[in-house]
Amino acid sequence: MILSALADATMVPGPDAQPRDRDRLGKGTAVNIVELIAKKRDGGVLSDDEIRYIIKEYSADRMPSYQMAAMAMAIFFRGLDPRETGTWTDAMLHSGRVLDMSELGPGRVDKHSTGGVGDKISLPLAPAAAACGVIVPMVAGRGLGHTGGTVDKLEAIPGYDVSLPVDRFKAVLAEVGCSIIGQTEEIAPADKRLYALRDVTATVESIPLICASIMGKKLAEGIEGLVLDIKVGAGAFMKTVESARELARAMIAVGEATNCRVITILTRMDEPLGRMIGNACEIDESVACLRGEGPPDIEELVVVLGGAMVEVAKGVSKEEGQAAIKASLHDGTALDRWNRMVAAQGGDMSKVPVATHSVEVRAERAGFVQLIESRELGMVATILGAGRLKAGDIIDPIVGMRVNAKVGDKVNIGDSLVTVSYNPARPASEAELARILAAYTIGDDHRELGPLIIERWG
Amino acid sequence: MILSALADATMVPGPDAQPRDRDRLGKGTAVNIVELIAKKRDGGVLSDDEIRYIIKEYSADRMPSYQMAAMAMAIFFRGLDPRETGTWTDAMLHSGRVLDMSELGPGRVDKHSTGGVGDKISLPLAPAAAACGVIVPMVAGRGLGHTGGTVDKLEAIPGYDVSLPVDRFKAVLAEVGCSIIGQTEEIAPADKRLYALRDVTATVESIPLICASIMGKKLAEGIEGLVLDIKVGAGAFMKTVESARELARAMIAVGEATNCRVITILTRMDEPLGRMIGNACEIDESVACLRGEGPPDIEELVVVLGGAMVEVAKGVSKEEGQAAIKASLHDGTALDRWNRMVAAQGGDMSKVPVATHSVEVRAERAGFVQLIESRELGMVATILGAGRLKAGDIIDPIVGMRVNAKVGDKVNIGDSLVTVSYNPARPASEAELARILAAYTIGDDHRELGPLIIERWG
Repeated sequence: MILSALADATMVPGPDAQPRDRDRLGKGTAVNIVELIAKKRDGGVLSDDEIRYIIKEYSADRMPSYQMAAMAMAIFFRGLDPRETGTWTDAMLHSGRVLDMSELGPGRVDKHSTGGVGDKISLPLAPAAAACGVIVPMVAGRGLGHTGGTVDKLEAIPGYDVSLPVDRFKAVLAEVGCSIIGQTEEIAPADKRLYALRDVTATVESIPLICASIMGKKLAEGIEGLVLDIKVGAGAFMKTVESARELARAMIAVGEATNCRVITILTRMDEPLGRMIGNACEIDESVACLRGEGPPDIEELVVVLGGAMVEVAKGVSKEEGQAAIKASLHDGTALDRWNRMVAAQGGDMSKVPVATHSVEVRAERAGFVQLIESRELGMVATILGAGRLKAGDIIDPIVGMRVNAKVGDKVNIGDSLVTVSYNPARPASEAELARILAAYTIGDDHRELGPLIIERWG
Repeated sequence: MILSALADATMVPGPDAQPRDRDRLGKGTAVNIVELIAKKRDGGVLSDDEIRYIIKEYSADRMPSYQMAAMAMAIFFRGLDPRETGTWTDAMLHSGRVLDMSELGPGRVDKHSTGGVGDKISLPLAPAAAACGVIVPMVAGRGLGHTGGTVDKLEAIPGYDVSLPVDRFKAVLAEVGCSIIGQTEEIAPADKRLYALRDVTATVESIPLICASIMGKKLAEGIEGLVLDIKVGAGAFMKTVESARELARAMIAVGEATNCRVITILTRMDEPLGRMIGNACEIDESVACLRGEGPPDIEELVVVLGGAMVEVAKGVSKEEGQAAIKASLHDGTALDRWNRMVAAQGGDMSKVPVATHSVEVRAERAGFVQLIESRELGMVATILGAGRLKAGDIIDPIVGMRVNAKVGDKVNIGDSLVTVSYNPARPASEAELARILAAYTIGDDHRELGPLIIERWG
């Protein structure tokens, strides 16, 4: 049918052309991928068989990336309903290895965040939750662009092995209750390819595909529950509470479709979390939190997110869950779990490197800090070596920043806003320091940030 | 910004990943393709510079096919306004060679059809228009699927050269007034690749991209005017008059944006045109039309479409144009142009092959023919060797059909509906003959088809 569009169009196929890929679905229906793209494009609902066929063909390299790009854009416009999203997620999940964690017993819950600058929450959270009886099989990512990655932060600890084989991962979980490792090629490989494709085809911003990507990877951990931290704010992926609620609703629906209890917590992202941005320095700040001496925003998030994990894993009330987490941060039990986890994975906390060179970015006017463009601080930190501009870039763990003035703070001319720690082989340029200064808005009026925790769903 | 979507998403790029392609537009604006896809996706209007950049990058293989697939799908949903479509067309056009035909003088007009079964109109039309003083530099296509291609039909004439070099093409035009050749790699190569890509990504059905594809190729002929035959009907690409009008409006607007007068004529496509489907047999039917002895629907279309060409080329009225074409079909001048064109391109009409084997498909009930599914006849003809199922298939010029009963005809049991001419090396199977029979709906009531010419715009 499509071929009749332009009778006089050339028939010489370009380098992109391929033979029509016809195959049969389970129930004997002949389909081809083009027809499925057209079906979604025209607002149709894909059957379970059709979705599994698409992911199977894509995984097996029989559906080329240009067809998946067209499909992803059609999904951007037409969406996927909860049943379609659940099936898409399940198909992504089963494109790779799914861990069987049942031998560890019930109470396996993880956390995911939609990403922010200075977001080291996973580091104190996993051991705190483990101290409260949750089993936390956390498979975390690396950073790219202005956001750091949990795995990169852990690699600032000399010896820490983020690539445990599955049996070691399970052994650490059985012994400590938590383990944080990096993603392997085995987990949801179709999602890995699709995410890279979406990133270069402007199809990241699709709620159902975001849900399927998060859930397809997390379910591979063999978890029963997931607490999702949805960042809201100008610097976050979700700019408005309304769009964050949409993601929350969709995630809860996917959880229902895939038998995973999902709690979503919308949190404000108007400035960096805590005071540290970088790798080694975020390890220090996380340990401070585990000692009950962390910045208040970090502790608050750990208590609220960890409390929800305890709630799901142990069947206690929200208040009981939060109280348990808070206690673990102040009675040494969370820190004990951290130390045992790091040791079990070969890390040596005494060898975490410390920066020796630093430079201050100072206020050029007096007033109250009204806004900090977190993304800018994250980008400068990345450029200086704390993150990656492209895949494969080497990270320097000592590079980072301390945010001395946060929103609402009063500053005088010459006060330090940010301390930048750098490697003398790559000092910060004047332009980079100016960029940090420009990320600050300082005004005469005192601005009070709204509450960190906005609302909770699920 | 996009990168923050999933902080824990893996950063290991899949095989599809590419470095961000940053470049600079004319006015010093840094852009990347992903941002331009997102702009169109979000309903933005692309600047001329942005469109030229996209086509330039795609042509140079710096914009991968998956990005163009996502862009095409975004355009399917968001459209292109007339200025964007004009610029897109112009960029496609200038991805290849544009012929300078000014030495031939004014009055250069071509015709394009959106495609139908048995549509051999170009063959009598070009010489008839030339006989009336129009210069017709026609670059035609090959067939794929159920529709035949003008170039394939001409190749049924032994010796006819469809691959004239440009100087020979111009010489034939100067001498005869018309020449029909096949597309070359030089004409709008970006369109060639994009069309092949759209065909496998369900993005053919985009009005602005259809316009740009037609016009980008036709403008390469150096024409000043184009008559567009838009087929309407269940078997045509445009199912409804409304959708055909939308294409007509868009084509006229693109013509305005690219300085090409466009006249669109909506014509009904409810049964095959004329009686012949195939290659050698359509040559015969075309010559009959040029002798004033063609089927009435063929002559009517040639008169209306050719009349419009004369109107544009010579500045006469619609009625004068049509009268001139009609006269040329009956006074031998059109046939003379045909014979001169075929001879100038090396063809020998006396050697057009004739089928020796045929089989009749007979009515199994009496009544009136109410519907003929042209697409089915076209597909069976293609399968038997009259066309191509895939690029590179060899065409057998003698294979074809004669449609003995058309819509409105009364038939008795045993009357021949279709005569199938085949190559004895590949006889028609029972299933194929049954498929032809099933393409006919025969009922008790007499059905009168509506007028062939529906309406005209531009």
